[in-house]
Amino acid sequence: MAADHAAGRLAVATLPGIGEIVPGDDLPTIVAESLGAAVASGGALVDLAPLRPDDVVVVTSKVVSKAEGSIVDLATIEPRPEAVAFAARWDRDPRQVEVVLREARRVVRMANGVLITETEHGFICANGGVDASNVGPRSGDIVLLLPRDPDASAAAIRAAIRAIVGIDLAVIVSDSFGRPWRWGITDVAIGVSGIAPIEDLRGTPDADGRVMRSTIRAVADEIASAAELALGKVGGRPVALVRGAVPDRRESSIGEALIPAASDLFR
Amino acid sequence: MAADHAAGRLAVATLPGIGEIVPGDDLPTIVAESLGAAVASGGALVDLAPLRPDDVVVVTSKVVSKAEGSIVDLATIEPRPEAVAFAARWDRDPRQVEVVLREARRVVRMANGVLITETEHGFICANGGVDASNVGPRSGDIVLLLPRDPDASAAAIRAAIRAIVGIDLAVIVSDSFGRPWRWGITDVAIGVSGIAPIEDLRGTPDADGRVMRSTIRAVADEIASAAELALGKVGGRPVALVRGAVPDRRESSIGEALIPAASDLFR
Repeated sequence: MAADHAAGRLAVATLPGIGEIVPGDDLPTIVAESLGAAVASGGALVDLAPLRPDDVVVVTSKVVSKAEGSIVDLATIEPRPEAVAFAARWDRDPRQVEVVLREARRVVRMANGVLITETEHGFICANGGVDASNVGPRSGDIVLLLPRDPDASAAAIRAAIRAIVGIDLAVIVSDSFGRPWRWGITDVAIGVSGIAPIEDLRGTPDADGRVMRSTIRAVADEIASAAELALGKVGGRPVALVRGAVPDRRESSIGEALIPAASDLFR
Repeated sequence: MAADHAAGRLAVATLPGIGEIVPGDDLPTIVAESLGAAVASGGALVDLAPLRPDDVVVVTSKVVSKAEGSIVDLATIEPRPEAVAFAARWDRDPRQVEVVLREARRVVRMANGVLITETEHGFICANGGVDASNVGPRSGDIVLLLPRDPDASAAAIRAAIRAIVGIDLAVIVSDSFGRPWRWGITDVAIGVSGIAPIEDLRGTPDADGRVMRSTIRAVADEIASAAELALGKVGGRPVALVRGAVPDRRESSIGEALIPAASDLFR
């Protein structure tokens, strides 16, 4: 994969050796050590050595939230009447609905059993990113929240890779979001470090020399989606290395990818 | 790339040898012959040989529309007063606005200079998919429409690959769509053949044995996004081969990915 890599190729490899993550785990060190071991002589990803400055590490938010303790035990939650009523009508857990409402800066839609909120980060997503699947071996009372500051989570992983592996790679923290109008979830970036989430091609010429008027590529979201295809949804594989995506290494934040309310037509 | 390919790996390669496409070109044969030549002995993608039944071919809609003649010469268009007014207010071409309105089954939003419509296919997207960039060497009077029946376009390419290369591969026709709430476009599937656009994991157990309640993976959209990372936006590279995405080879149509109006909260 490394030797024949050339322009017009993309390669995604899942990082082996990362087990169950629990609160308090030093995830940045775990990711960095696994990456270093995987590309070292004898490692599972030795064909990817040497790492390259345009490689991108994608880490799913689920393990970030677990390690950082962004976890709520629903047994501690007293739902408000609005949450009880919505949950009863749509066969949902009222305590989970309560957590979603507590995490919300604003409710965007609350209908048809679907609860779409704007989180404190500015993300608009189903259930405010509160996640009840694949949260660990404990039974149904544990839910995961989004990481408090996903850019900072990405920066910490990036710093550990720099310190332990000796290379400065871009890092994306990803999560699975739905979209209006189309069924299904795709993985998107919710935190970035060392990569700009969008690439603004406005004002640059297209293949015919015509100035492109409105093309902004959501590169980090596409990288997160490509990583998801390799990681899958049920395999317990939380980290991928993406090579060939030509990331824009500009320092940025995920906020750059979010449309402010004043420019938005759907809230 | 082929030899070391294993579970948890994704590889995307751009197909070389496809030049400018013009109306009347037999795109299915061109794609199939290029694919066959690329993986043949001495070809540019010989490291990908042999092709595998879970490889997916992604073709951007732009070349499909060109080959099929889904093209409008704006010099022939007489804009209605509503198009003239909107275009004047937002510094747009009134003839292009007119074409978008003609292609629309329904206008979803028409504000802030943004025109979001539902096309006859059922896609909801900016400018109804009408595309004025990278349309060819002619100057600004030509726009591309979406292919009339992208599933049929994908099926024709699939049939040509089967006939010429001798393997039945899934084919996706892709286009670049924006999303509410986040800046930037990502590539999504607008036509499929030999692959289901979504993978419904509802009712299957997650890694902890808990039944997943609402996970539908938009696999074809993620494959389209992964392909876009390799193809880029300005390179004139319209076809990619994606290996490792574990496509669901169920016969389907892109309609399966579209949320019907009755279930939708954002139109």
